[in-house]
Amino acid sequence: MQEKMMEYARLLVEIGVNVQKGQNLVISAPVECADFARMCAKAAYAAGCREVIMNWKDDTLTREKYLHAAEDVFDTVPEWSKHFYNDYAQEGAAFLSISATDPENLLGVDSGRLVRSQRSSGEALKPYYRLQMASGFAWCIASIPIPSWANKVFPGRADAMERLWDAILATVRVNGDGRAVERWRDHLKKLEERRDKLNAYHFASLHYRNSLGTDLVIRLPENHLWAAGGGATKSGQAFIANIPTEEIFTAPLRNGIDGVVYAALPLCHDGNIIDKFHMVVKEGKIVEVHAEKGEETLRSAISVDEGASYFGEVALVPYDSPISNQKILFYHTLFDENASCHLAFGEAYNECIQGGADMTKEELKAQGLNDSITHVDFMVGTKDLSIVGTTHDGQEIPVFVDGNFAF
Amino acid sequence: MQEKMMEYARLLVEIGVNVQKGQNLVISAPVECADFARMCAKAAYAAGCREVIMNWKDDTLTREKYLHAAEDVFDTVPEWSKHFYNDYAQEGAAFLSISATDPENLLGVDSGRLVRSQRSSGEALKPYYRLQMASGFAWCIASIPIPSWANKVFPGRADAMERLWDAILATVRVNGDGRAVERWRDHLKKLEERRDKLNAYHFASLHYRNSLGTDLVIRLPENHLWAAGGGATKSGQAFIANIPTEEIFTAPLRNGIDGVVYAALPLCHDGNIIDKFHMVVKEGKIVEVHAEKGEETLRSAISVDEGASYFGEVALVPYDSPISNQKILFYHTLFDENASCHLAFGEAYNECIQGGADMTKEELKAQGLNDSITHVDFMVGTKDLSIVGTTHDGQEIPVFVDGNFAF
Repeated sequence: MQEKMMEYARLLVEIGVNVQKGQNLVISAPVECADFARMCAKAAYAAGCREVIMNWKDDTLTREKYLHAAEDVFDTVPEWSKHFYNDYAQEGAAFLSISATDPENLLGVDSGRLVRSQRSSGEALKPYYRLQMASGFAWCIASIPIPSWANKVFPGRADAMERLWDAILATVRVNGDGRAVERWRDHLKKLEERRDKLNAYHFASLHYRNSLGTDLVIRLPENHLWAAGGGATKSGQAFIANIPTEEIFTAPLRNGIDGVVYAALPLCHDGNIIDKFHMVVKEGKIVEVHAEKGEETLRSAISVDEGASYFGEVALVPYDSPISNQKILFYHTLFDENASCHLAFGEAYNECIQGGADMTKEELKAQGLNDSITHVDFMVGTKDLSIVGTTHDGQEIPVFVDGNFAF
Repeated sequence: MQEKMMEYARLLVEIGVNVQKGQNLVISAPVECADFARMCAKAAYAAGCREVIMNWKDDTLTREKYLHAAEDVFDTVPEWSKHFYNDYAQEGAAFLSISATDPENLLGVDSGRLVRSQRSSGEALKPYYRLQMASGFAWCIASIPIPSWANKVFPGRADAMERLWDAILATVRVNGDGRAVERWRDHLKKLEERRDKLNAYHFASLHYRNSLGTDLVIRLPENHLWAAGGGATKSGQAFIANIPTEEIFTAPLRNGIDGVVYAALPLCHDGNIIDKFHMVVKEGKIVEVHAEKGEETLRSAISVDEGASYFGEVALVPYDSPISNQKILFYHTLFDENASCHLAFGEAYNECIQGGADMTKEELKAQGLNDSITHVDFMVGTKDLSIVGTTHDGQEIPVFVDGNFAF
């Protein structure tokens, strides 16, 4: 197990953020994940990293804060915190996030505090978030188990932690043979082949339908680009923003989505679970939401700012993907979004438009991309999902048939 | 045990830093101490704290940094870190430090890196350190066990952690009956009675002698004050800087120390152990040091700046104190200094001079107080220590006889 963890740590450092000689690396991790964070730090120093800076997280303390801190805490961001995120982002440090949380850590917390907190950090850390969306620095989100989360995924199992470790290591192609990096290079190549096919079609729109009730037409910007797997910063540092990643994604036309979309899986957002929900969308805007569970959290999420009720991402993942075939509901977007076609409301990625890396916010808007301080993925792929693409000359091309790629 | 830990956490929050309604609390703690840190946070919110801000530490990552980070890391302090310490200090936040470390965590590390790091942080965090020495904010250093440290104190014992917990809880007067705060109020009262007696003598000098070879005369500033136990900020917030505390302390006259002083216990400093050492002092300056172990660490410690080779504190602790009677070598200054008379080289505390709280650095110097970015306590009390005080009219008064107070 120690071997596998080390291989995983090296994978994240070497091709996840691909830390460079002399570069700073910021690692976010829950305190429960200290052993693994230390392995990542060792791997980073071995790769010539200048300094590893830790950004420790703790579910309990986060919950305590949202429950008991003073009101104005949620409307302000201290200077040190602005400098922390914005300065490291602006100097081009690498950011590795070990993301692990109790999916219902913030159950019962005043959702107003969550929204205000997101708004104030969205404003204060704008340079950081902007650079992240524009590939201004190398970043990678990955995950390892913590007990509270593992017990949610495998309730009542004494070996919940081991099972979740096994499940995660399978999704990230780590088996202890030391060849995970090679397997990832192969995997990225395959994703890129599909990405190239999608770009060649140059679709004008996609029509989603399934038996849940989804019937949604998504128009794409004239100059949209599909992206997959690995990206690169402007300065040419390759990185993989999510490990695992199985998706091929682009940006929708901000005002070009109409219809109804049903979630295929629960969504864990802001420490709450949103389940059995659907949305009605008109000219790109979410005009109605219904959820059997967590509706208030969902309403808060789409009201963080104006752009939060418009869409920023369209991502294709086959129903028969290595992650979804495990038939595990991870209660963690990093895994669940890579087990299912998904959409995101909120901010679009610059790389999803031709020349986007060098565009201002205004130019991106002119291209039809959405702007927001938030970006929330939710899963829509089912085993009977059909997606039909329409090209600019009116041809209809099956993209997804019965939940999987048609080509 | 859970009960005792909660009682201890409440003690630290309620009378250690004495957190006020609406006040921020910064908690420093190793990640291994997360459970206890969470208890402190809960106690702080229960007391009306505005926000608990965590400052997590980790021995392994600190060691990795000193071994493998780039050279210039040790000469610079990032903006965010300056803002973190200086801003919270300047707004008058409370600082609680849960101090626990492997006493030899930095064994083998380049001592030049340690010194440079201390110099650059001494410079960058000057507002924070100055305010700390001048009681500009409420602060409290306390401790709980971590495995690496417990195994050093009780080598080869499977129950090392439990033993160290028991030892620490005994020193901090926590037994689970919920009355620790009362016991502490009684204890502080006793220390204050002794402090008042010492102030009444208004000694001109103290003469230390014991069989180890110590023969040292320490002159005291004309306007020196003895302090003990609890202090208070300028704004009147009472706090206890060290829990446990058994000492009564003042500042020596910077240029008024002559003779030889032998350490009575090993000193753990900067992740290294310094043992069996003595110093020769002329007109206040340490002109010679000899150590059987850790001499390089000691030499580095007194060369951080000019004031590091002069003295900043004289502290009296009876040999038969509740801590020393446990006959445990804690390898942690917080405990060992409260088990033995000690001296400190480096900075003096403002409160040790009449009107010191409102004095500038220059005024404090004019009073004879030492100035440095460091402050390192080391233990000199033995069971045969004799201290004779000489008053300004030439009377010789026994202060310590056979290691204990003569009055």
